[in-house]
Amino acid sequence: MALVFYERVGHDGRRPSPYSWRIRYALAHKGVDFEVRPVRFADVDIIRGLTGQTLTPVLVDGDRAVHETWQIACHLEDRFPDRPSLFSGALGRGVTRHVNSWTDSQLASSLRYVVYTDFLSVLDAGDRAYFRSTREQALGMTLEEACADPDARLIEFQQACAPLELTLSEQPYVCGAEPAYADFTVFSVFQWARLGSPKDVVAEGSAIAEWRGRMITLFDNLADRFPGYN
Amino acid sequence: MALVFYERVGHDGRRPSPYSWRIRYALAHKGVDFEVRPVRFADVDIIRGLTGQTLTPVLVDGDRAVHETWQIACHLEDRFPDRPSLFSGALGRGVTRHVNSWTDSQLASSLRYVVYTDFLSVLDAGDRAYFRSTREQALGMTLEEACADPDARLIEFQQACAPLELTLSEQPYVCGAEPAYADFTVFSVFQWARLGSPKDVVAEGSAIAEWRGRMITLFDNLADRFPGYN
Repeated sequence: MALVFYERVGHDGRRPSPYSWRIRYALAHKGVDFEVRPVRFADVDIIRGLTGQTLTPVLVDGDRAVHETWQIACHLEDRFPDRPSLFSGALGRGVTRHVNSWTDSQLASSLRYVVYTDFLSVLDAGDRAYFRSTREQALGMTLEEACADPDARLIEFQQACAPLELTLSEQPYVCGAEPAYADFTVFSVFQWARLGSPKDVVAEGSAIAEWRGRMITLFDNLADRFPGYN
Repeated sequence: MALVFYERVGHDGRRPSPYSWRIRYALAHKGVDFEVRPVRFADVDIIRGLTGQTLTPVLVDGDRAVHETWQIACHLEDRFPDRPSLFSGALGRGVTRHVNSWTDSQLASSLRYVVYTDFLSVLDAGDRAYFRSTREQALGMTLEEACADPDARLIEFQQACAPLELTLSEQPYVCGAEPAYADFTVFSVFQWARLGSPKDVVAEGSAIAEWRGRMITLFDNLADRFPGYN
């Protein structure tokens, strides 16, 4: 029975969620078949019915529904041990988890202040009010206040990217010579920026820009399979 | 022929260099014999003669002298492949390099503004003027100016540690269930703070504090083998 992948869908089929992209790449890396069930924020009851919580993506594998991207990646690794590894053993999994922590707490968190107001317009029209109210509650301010100085915030994001630039100046992928899950999770943040904002958040000519180009072309240009920014 | 490890020595045998500690842990993890040659900043000609540059530590293995801690760690991994791995394969090595980049560019870099003035007093008395002049040139200000607001700088350091706190809330080591090189490189920064300053840079009761305690006891309390802060 094929895996079923519930992921956030935006307007006209857009797929702007970073959390969805890291799992799409992990599924492609494992080379496993899956069906997609696109869900809007308005479809929250579907997700709640599956998992008892409201966040996407969710992966359903037989009678098991897995949520939270790190748990989904671990599930894929354990379920398909004979396919290419996402982590390289227990030690590689541990270290990759730290890159995942860094991605979420330093990169994604900082990028919100650059792209959040742009991001509204790629969502399904019926989802925008929900997105606004939940994110404004989390931020403690309006989206417009959060994104009031995008140039300064972009500099902060790029400073947070300094270790990535250092790593990619020495090797083609975060994982070394070939990409794996640490690349997928870091790239998901840049894909979020690409599909959720007209701003280019990467400095031209940087090692990050070259790596992003390589990541986009992986798996038959997977990153360009859905519509881009409006 | 035993490996020869040239590492920075401070006053009364102190070993406050973070770069030295990550390699000491790597050597202990591999379980290989080595001789130590302590060097002061004043002994720079010894290091220059071996490697054509001035940074410590240096590992001499037969007729090869390796400098720069990442290169030394890779040399140990490749030279002793049958001993416990530092990285877990090519993928684990790649991801660990990124943790190394993050450690140097975000943690160590930020901690300088907390500990640099304290650090002077653990150096050999004859090394202090050299340390001051080279570091002040790199910072573009005096050590006292750099450390003028240690409380605010400590908060910045702890913010840079946020992904580490997140990771260690989920697993006992950066590398998962057991420590390896990613732990050693991150811990080396905390060991630098322990041995180079009277300030405790870790919040009591945090996951980082518990992990630091575990790291100190590894390899028969390796972290406490030399004199502590004055």
